[in-house]
Amino acid sequence: LCCMSRVLPTPDPRRREALIQQEVSMQTGGQMTLSDAEKRLDARLFKMKQEEEQKADFPPALHFFKSRDIIKTSPIFSLLQKMPKGGALHVHDFSMVDVQWLVKNVTYRPHCYMCFTDNLSIRFIFMSQWPKPLPHCSPWNLLENLRAKVTNITDLDNSIMANLTLFTDDPEAAYPSQYVVWDRFEQKFQALWGLVTYAPVFRDYYYEGLRQFYMDNVMYLELRALLPELYELDGSTHDSTWTLKTYQDVTRQFTENYPDFYGARIIFTVHRGVNASVMTDVVEKAMKLQRDFPDIMAGFDLVGHEDKGRPLWYFRDALSLPAEKGVTLPFFFHAGETDLEGTDVDQNLLDALLFNASRIGHGFALLRHPVAKDLSRKREVAVEVCPISNQVMKLVKDMRNHPAAALLAENHPVVISSDDPAMFGSCGLSYDFYEAFVGFGGLRSHIGSLKQLVINSIKYSSLTNAQQEKALALWQNSWNKFVSENAF
Amino acid sequence: LCCMSRVLPTPDPRRREALIQQEVSMQTGGQMTLSDAEKRLDARLFKMKQEEEQKADFPPALHFFKSRDIIKTSPIFSLLQKMPKGGALHVHDFSMVDVQWLVKNVTYRPHCYMCFTDNLSIRFIFMSQWPKPLPHCSPWNLLENLRAKVTNITDLDNSIMANLTLFTDDPEAAYPSQYVVWDRFEQKFQALWGLVTYAPVFRDYYYEGLRQFYMDNVMYLELRALLPELYELDGSTHDSTWTLKTYQDVTRQFTENYPDFYGARIIFTVHRGVNASVMTDVVEKAMKLQRDFPDIMAGFDLVGHEDKGRPLWYFRDALSLPAEKGVTLPFFFHAGETDLEGTDVDQNLLDALLFNASRIGHGFALLRHPVAKDLSRKREVAVEVCPISNQVMKLVKDMRNHPAAALLAENHPVVISSDDPAMFGSCGLSYDFYEAFVGFGGLRSHIGSLKQLVINSIKYSSLTNAQQEKALALWQNSWNKFVSENAF
Ligand SMILES: [Zn+2]
Ligand SMILES: [Zn+2]
Repeated sequence: LCCMSRVLPTPDPRRREALIQQEVSMQTGGQMTLSDAEKRLDARLFKMKQEEEQKADFPPALHFFKSRDIIKTSPIFSLLQKMPKGGALHVHDFSMVDVQWLVKNVTYRPHCYMCFTDNLSIRFIFMSQWPKPLPHCSPWNLLENLRAKVTNITDLDNSIMANLTLFTDDPEAAYPSQYVVWDRFEQKFQALWGLVTYAPVFRDYYYEGLRQFYMDNVMYLELRALLPELYELDGSTHDSTWTLKTYQDVTRQFTENYPDFYGARIIFTVHRGVNASVMTDVVEKAMKLQRDFPDIMAGFDLVGHEDKGRPLWYFRDALSLPAEKGVTLPFFFHAGETDLEGTDVDQNLLDALLFNASRIGHGFALLRHPVAKDLSRKREVAVEVCPISNQVMKLVKDMRNHPAAALLAENHPVVISSDDPAMFGSCGLSYDFYEAFVGFGGLRSHIGSLKQLVINSIKYSSLTNAQQEKALALWQNSWNKFVSENAF
Repeated sequence: LCCMSRVLPTPDPRRREALIQQEVSMQTGGQMTLSDAEKRLDARLFKMKQEEEQKADFPPALHFFKSRDIIKTSPIFSLLQKMPKGGALHVHDFSMVDVQWLVKNVTYRPHCYMCFTDNLSIRFIFMSQWPKPLPHCSPWNLLENLRAKVTNITDLDNSIMANLTLFTDDPEAAYPSQYVVWDRFEQKFQALWGLVTYAPVFRDYYYEGLRQFYMDNVMYLELRALLPELYELDGSTHDSTWTLKTYQDVTRQFTENYPDFYGARIIFTVHRGVNASVMTDVVEKAMKLQRDFPDIMAGFDLVGHEDKGRPLWYFRDALSLPAEKGVTLPFFFHAGETDLEGTDVDQNLLDALLFNASRIGHGFALLRHPVAKDLSRKREVAVEVCPISNQVMKLVKDMRNHPAAALLAENHPVVISSDDPAMFGSCGLSYDFYEAFVGFGGLRSHIGSLKQLVINSIKYSSLTNAQQEKALALWQNSWNKFVSENAF
């Protein structure tokens, strides 16, 4: 660049163009070779995006709860829905299926009881007999009876729904701070617990979850799963292994019914609020499950509000067990989902990398950690970017200012995912792809960027090389079809 | 880093510590050697910052209009006020002095007329005779008469004040989008125009501006100034040269009265809404002023809403004139004060660098432009970060997520400034230093970071090396005094 400090009358336009092109080619998908059809589709997308930016209410500048209905009408969104999106690598077990389905299907099943907690939340249980009351709760109501009593069932169902999702009309008022929104998140999670851990519902929920992702043109899933004990109507329970096997069975059944769906794997998770000794037990259990179910088990992770929970380093002894014992247990740590800087929690990004994590959940703080960022890039430890989650959990407001804009500008290893779509009133991956493509991708991101992000979701998955090739071939088919049907 | 991929039982704690220290030392001020007294002061600051982060309403997470009163009570803020902050390198001419002074002092002067515009703004003029009505305005009111008529003068004064600043209790409701807040900004700017371009007020305003920055322990100023024609009571006017000379006179007078204030220089600015031929005239005028007043003139810049205005490249012929003619005219371009990506405006950052800008105003989008970021770093073209401005103008919400966090993490050449403090209900530099230090600096930033930022404000100023040395010596004196008085 030495020649640039010469004083020239106007910067040389060719030199300028070269630098602009250099930046364009550095970005995610910037070096992707495009077919003629892909180029035609890209021209359409570019025009649509320009029109989208003229709108008074530009969706990525708004909170998702206010932009969702606008996005629904966007022609870009409709294309992104059709687009084969590869894998969803960061999704949690009990936020896969929209709450409408939970209320309209699950709570209408027989033997479903509901009670009201002292702090205005709700709890559920399925039971053959009238269940014993919970502490800090009203007596149980059989929902069938309750619905027979109330004058307006729609109101009741809506109020149940509101208790199971963060989605609301006025998010600024409802969730004034990160702590409040995390608290509500966990409350709503408690509320749906009794529904989804009922074994028959669990199976159906997971099948329906796969179906909703499949309908959104997602072909593969890596699911963060707590593997809770499941219960039956008589109060008997099944252990984690049974839960994992259920995932395996249902996945198998689903892929039989939908052969162009590649499959799903499980990342076993535990809440980061546990203490060191519990963590040791859990890691041992994870190693055992990994050994016994290598096909379905992808690895291990910690969940919950990072700021409030214990840092990874606190659990270093437990997390060192697999390496110590020479046992494989891939890590997929949530890390850097925080605005804190310089605290113990803020070292999670570096520690995730030092524990040889295979991917990083969120990595929202990565730009603030140049050493960690460098490691993540060099070792190709992909960052799972979940735009809508970050916005709802109040890490970013205007999506155009999401740090992933900088990561995409440098083609950092990134995949797009949706974290807890049901909790955010979203579904599948399309809304998050919209925010990425129209929001922090800007006018600069193009069909090549989308293609690269999709390919990344297979390349950075936990699948073996041979599996990845198979999945890629499957995806390439759908992609070609998608392109030829939409390029004109 | 090859040794890190070895499988170790726990990541080696010494290696981990080394990487953490590497990141710590990479940051702004990370390599600064600290005296014992500075270390003691730092320990105090660290403790205060930890306490600040425990607060329910953590100010950097809030809009400045809601956090200002909380910040005022912060012991860190009170230390930052006392801290000698070096130079303010990005401040605009008519937003230096709090609007209280404008209303309570200026509008109480004789011959001050006010009218109400059709779009609910106000206009002012000083005139010896009753002025002719403005189009789209009510008839003029002599403020003296108006105040005699109204029952509540405080209400009147408050409503005048509200018309001169963006500061308001409910910024989210008042300014729903970037376009709206920019529109209001320009409206309020129009409102105060008639007050501050009245020659006697202009002198007093600038003197009071210097005083307010000086009281905030700022020792040097580079002022973006439109150099408008100024008017007298009889309607006669003075040209730009007269305005520039007035700046020179008042600065001289001020530094005589306050010898520990180093001085001020002027960056001549023009609105980016003008066309190419006007720009050519303005650049020629700028070159002339730069030649005739080399002491006070620092250079040239464009102002106004970047998204709505013309890109730098549109003005390439005019901006090439100085280089073509072999004339010195340093550029200090606003660039990258935008969320747009991939548009013509979004090339301003690169173009500012290609036109050899001496510094960049805002550079908010720099992280999204790796090529420009690299050039800025290598050529030490400092970025003028104005945190509160970026928040009020809706580029960022939570200050911890300001992109400057990443710039500080890598010791990118950065200075902190306040842009339009009066418009934002701020003053001097202390509030912006607070947001930088407590907000995006995080717990990680320390007294060394502050010291580095202050030194940067002299090092990256337009002063000659000899002047910088003198200014630094002056600053070092106040700094030592500040440290010894506050380290215990
Ligand atoms: Zn997650
Ligand atoms: Zn400015």
